Amino acid sequence: MATDAVNVTLTGANIIAGRDSRAGSSVFRSVDPRSGREGSVAFAEATAQELADSAATALRVFHEWRSTTPRGRATLLRATATQLAAWRGSIVTMADEETALGPDRLNGELDRTTGQLRAFADLLDEGSYVQAIISPGDARATPPRPDLRRMLVPIGPVAVFTPSNFPLAFGALGGDTASALAAGCPVIVKGHPSHPATSEICARALLTAAASVGAPDGVLSLLQARDVAIARALVTAPEVQAVGFTGSFGAGRALHDLAASRPEPIRVYAEMGSLNPLFVGPHALGERRGEIADGLAASVMLGTGQFCTKPGLVFVMDNEAGSGFARALADRIASRAAGVMLNRSLRENLDRQVARTTALPGIDRLTPSPSESEAGSAGTVVTTTARTFLGTPALQDEHFGPFVVVVRCTTPEQVLDIARQLHGNLTATIHADPPDQTWASDLAGILTDKVGRIVWNGYPTGVAVTSAMQHGGPYPATTDAAHTSVGATAIARFLRPVAFQNVPDALLPEALRDDNTLGIQRLVDGQWTRDPIRR
Amino acid sequence: MATDAVNVTLTGANIIAGRDSRAGSSVFRSVDPRSGREGSVAFAEATAQELADSAATALRVFHEWRSTTPRGRATLLRATATQLAAWRGSIVTMADEETALGPDRLNGELDRTTGQLRAFADLLDEGSYVQAIISPGDARATPPRPDLRRMLVPIGPVAVFTPSNFPLAFGALGGDTASALAAGCPVIVKGHPSHPATSEICARALLTAAASVGAPDGVLSLLQARDVAIARALVTAPEVQAVGFTGSFGAGRALHDLAASRPEPIRVYAEMGSLNPLFVGPHALGERRGEIADGLAASVMLGTGQFCTKPGLVFVMDNEAGSGFARALADRIASRAAGVMLNRSLRENLDRQVARTTALPGIDRLTPSPSESEAGSAGTVVTTTARTFLGTPALQDEHFGPFVVVVRCTTPEQVLDIARQLHGNLTATIHADPPDQTWASDLAGILTDKVGRIVWNGYPTGVAVTSAMQHGGPYPATTDAAHTSVGATAIARFLRPVAFQNVPDALLPEALRDDNTLGIQRLVDGQWTRDPIRR
Repeated sequence: MATDAVNVTLTGANIIAGRDSRAGSSVFRSVDPRSGREGSVAFAEATAQELADSAATALRVFHEWRSTTPRGRATLLRATATQLAAWRGSIVTMADEETALGPDRLNGELDRTTGQLRAFADLLDEGSYVQAIISPGDARATPPRPDLRRMLVPIGPVAVFTPSNFPLAFGALGGDTASALAAGCPVIVKGHPSHPATSEICARALLTAAASVGAPDGVLSLLQARDVAIARALVTAPEVQAVGFTGSFGAGRALHDLAASRPEPIRVYAEMGSLNPLFVGPHALGERRGEIADGLAASVMLGTGQFCTKPGLVFVMDNEAGSGFARALADRIASRAAGVMLNRSLRENLDRQVARTTALPGIDRLTPSPSESEAGSAGTVVTTTARTFLGTPALQDEHFGPFVVVVRCTTPEQVLDIARQLHGNLTATIHADPPDQTWASDLAGILTDKVGRIVWNGYPTGVAVTSAMQHGGPYPATTDAAHTSVGATAIARFLRPVAFQNVPDALLPEALRDDNTLGIQRLVDGQWTRDPIRR
Repeated sequence: MATDAVNVTLTGANIIAGRDSRAGSSVFRSVDPRSGREGSVAFAEATAQELADSAATALRVFHEWRSTTPRGRATLLRATATQLAAWRGSIVTMADEETALGPDRLNGELDRTTGQLRAFADLLDEGSYVQAIISPGDARATPPRPDLRRMLVPIGPVAVFTPSNFPLAFGALGGDTASALAAGCPVIVKGHPSHPATSEICARALLTAAASVGAPDGVLSLLQARDVAIARALVTAPEVQAVGFTGSFGAGRALHDLAASRPEPIRVYAEMGSLNPLFVGPHALGERRGEIADGLAASVMLGTGQFCTKPGLVFVMDNEAGSGFARALADRIASRAAGVMLNRSLRENLDRQVARTTALPGIDRLTPSPSESEAGSAGTVVTTTARTFLGTPALQDEHFGPFVVVVRCTTPEQVLDIARQLHGNLTATIHADPPDQTWASDLAGILTDKVGRIVWNGYPTGVAVTSAMQHGGPYPATTDAAHTSVGATAIARFLRPVAFQNVPDALLPEALRDDNTLGIQRLVDGQWTRDPIRR
C-alpha cells in the first residue's frame, strides 16, 4: 500500500458503491515511463461480476441522483474540486510517476480539472441548462392547443473511458465525468491502465467529498482493467445509457459499433484522432514565417506531441518562403529536447509509424533521424508536395506524438482544393494577414464544414474551457459532431427532452412551474424570460 | 398523365435537380385502398444511378443553400406553404384516393403541413435557433483566454423516408423535410410507395415555389421506389449526412444499423413504434370511467388507429369499475364503423397479429370477431391481467391499427411496478383525480424515464406543433431519444456546432459578429442578450 503526504491510501481495488472490491485474482501495476520501473501498488483487474455490480449500483443510484436538485449536485462537484485541490501534491506526484508529463503541466491540468467541476457547478446553480420551453395552451385555437412544457432530463448511467494523455482533465474526474454527474447521471469510469493510481486517487477524492456533503457514494464507480473484455461488457451493460470516450480511432470506432449493435442502441461520444491542419496564407508566410515556425514548434512539441489538438499537417506555398519555413520549423523542433512519451506502447507505435511514413516515396525528412540509443521521443518534421499528399492516404492518419507534415502547395487555389478533400478534424488553423483575406475567407467557409473549431492566427493546442468552446468535429475526429466534450454544452450529451402536457402545476418539475422559483431563463410563448407565468 | 383542376400535371418521374428523371424501366402504380383499383399514373422506380445523381445534386446545392441567409430560406418555406394551400383541392383528392383517410382529416393535415413550414420560417426569421454563444477573450487570464464564438451550422444533405400514415404532415414536405431545409440542408425524399402521387404533387409544389422565389431547385429531390435496395443505397450514399425516418420498427432499426456501419457513420432519426400506455387512477376510474372510455375510444379509432401516438395499452384496477370500463370501451369501439386501412399490407399484418394475440392464453377479446366478409378494419379490444401481461412479451409489440389492450392490475403499486418495466414509448397518459395524486406523482416520476411526453387527463393522439412539443422517446420508440420530429426543436437534428477562435469580425458568420445586426438572442459572457458587443 502506498501512502502519500496527506495520508491518501491507495488500495489498488476497484471501487463500487463506495467500497473496495477485488473479486478477481489478476492484478497489474503501473510503469514509470521514465525509468520503466513498476509501481508499488497491485491493481485488481475488474471481473465481469464487478462490472455487473457497478452497473446495477449506477442504476439504483440514478433515481436518487436525478432527484437531487441541480444545486445539490453542484455541492458535490464543488466539494470534489476542493478535495482535489487539497490533495494536489499527492495527485501531481502520482500522475507524474505514471505519465512523465511533469509537475508544471500536471498542476495546470489539475487547475483545469477543478475549474471544470466548478464551472459545471455554476451551470447547475444558474439552472437554465435544462432548456425549459413553455407553450401555453389555447382552448380557442383550431385544433385546441394544450399546455406543453418541455425540459431536459438525465438519461441514466454513463460509462466513461479515460485516455492516457490527460490523466486529470479527461481522467476519472475529467470533463466527461463532471458533465455526466452534473446532468444527474451516475458514472462508471473505466480507468486507463497507464495511470491506475491517478484514477484511484481521483475517485477517492470524489468519494471523500460525497461523504462530506451527504451525496450517494454510488454516483461514481471505478473499474481498473487492461482486458478489453471489460470495456466491451461495459458498453453492452443494459443499464448503461451513454458512453464518453477519449482515445484512439480504433478503440473509439469499436465501441461505437458495439453500442450501435446492442438490442437497445446507445450513443458513444468518442473523441478520437485529429490532424488539426494549419494553413499559412502567402502574405503571412512571407512576413511572419519565423514567428509562425516558433509558435508551431511549441504547439507540436507540447506534452511531447500527445495532444488531440496537436497540429500535424501544415499547408504552405511551394516557394522560397515555404521551404524556408519548413527548414525553420525543423530547426526549432530539432533543437528541443526529446520528451518521454506516456507509455512504451505509444512510443513504439509512433516509432513504427514514423519509420513507415518517412520511407514513403516523395516524403523528405527535415529533422535528423534519432539515434538508436536515444532515451526519449524527438520531434520529426517531414515535407512533401501537394500532389504526393493527395496520393498518400497514410498522411491523413494521425501520428500521435511529436510529428508534423509540411505540405507545399503550388497555388492558394490548390490549398482550397485540398481543404475540400480533408477528413473531419477537431480543429483547423488559419494564419493570414490582411492581403490574404479573400483567400482566408474562402478557406474558412470550406473548413466550417470540416472541423469543430477554426483558430485564427494562433495554435490549436490549449482548449479553453468556456461556454463557447466546441471540442468535437466531423468523423473521424469524433463519432458525434453535434456535441462537444469540453465546455458547458458538454452536458447536453447526457440529457434528453421530456414534454408535460396539461400536467397540474404541483406535479410539474420545479423548472417548469408557473412561479419559476429557480429564476431560470425559459422560452415562454416564444419569448425568453425569467419571469413567472401569470394566468 | 393525370391532370387536376388547377392543372397540376403528374408525370410519375423521379425529380432530381428540378428535372424529371426516368432512367429505369420498372414502374409501379398506387392502389386505392377503398376500391383496390390501380391509379392512372405509372411511377418510375428509381435506379441506382438516379440515386447517385440526387446525392451529388444535394451536395452541390448544399454549398449554395447553407449560404442562403436564414430569412432567404424562410422565403422558400413560406412560398411552399402558399403553393400547397393553392393546390389544396388537388392534393386532398389525390391523397384521399391513395390513403382513404378522408377529406376532413387530409384538409386538417394540409393545414398542419403548411403551419409547420410557416413555423420554421418564423424560427428562421427570428434567428436565435443557431444558439450563438460568445465567450470574450481575456489576455490577462491564466492561461490567457481566447475570444470564442460558437454557433450551429447545417450538417449537409439529408435523406427523408416518409411513412404511409401521414401522407402530408410527415410526407415529402412534412416536418422532417421542413426542418432539414430550414437548417440549410438539401433533402432527398424517398417517397412512400403507398402514395406516390401525393409525394409528387407535394414535391412539385416546392419546385414551383422555388422557381417563384429564385431558390435552387436541387434543394429537394424525390425518388419513388418500392425496392428496398434504393433505401439502402440512400442511407449509405457518402453525401448523405443524416436520415429522417418515420415508419415501422423493423425498417427503422435496419436503417439505423446500416448507417452505423458506414465507413463514416451517420445519425438516423427514426421514429418507430409506440404503445402509448394510458394509466387510470383508482378514483378517476370510479368517477369518470364512462367519460374516459368515450375519449379513449375516439383516440384509438382516430384514422383507423393508424397513429404512432395511438393509445394501445390501458392500465386499470382489477375491480368492478375496471371491468365496467373495459366493457364500456369495447362497446364504444364496437359501435364505430370499421375503417379502411392505408394499404392491404398493413391490414393483413394487423389481422394476422390480432389473430395471434387473441389466441394467446389469458387474453379475452371484448369486441366481436369481425366477419370474413367485412370490408374495413373494425376495432379490437382485449383484456388481461397484470400477471399475464408481464408474462406475454407480444403485448408490448405495437399492433398498428385500431387495437387496444386493457390490463387489469390488483393494486395501484402493481401499476407502478409495471410502469418501471415498460419499454420506451413516445407518450404516456395519466388519468387521475385529486385523491389519486400521490400515486399519480410517483407514476409521473417513473414515466419521465420511459417516454418523451406525459399527457395528463387527455389522450396522446393529436400532436400539437409548438416549441415545447417533444415527439420522440427512448428506444424502441425512436433511435434517438435526445431529439424530436415535431415542433421547433426538430431543426436541431440537422445542425452541429462550430466555434471560431479569435477570428476577425469581418470574417465571422453574421450571427456571431459584434454588431448583432440579426438581433438574435445570444449568450454573451454568461448573459443572454440581444445587444451588440461593445469593445
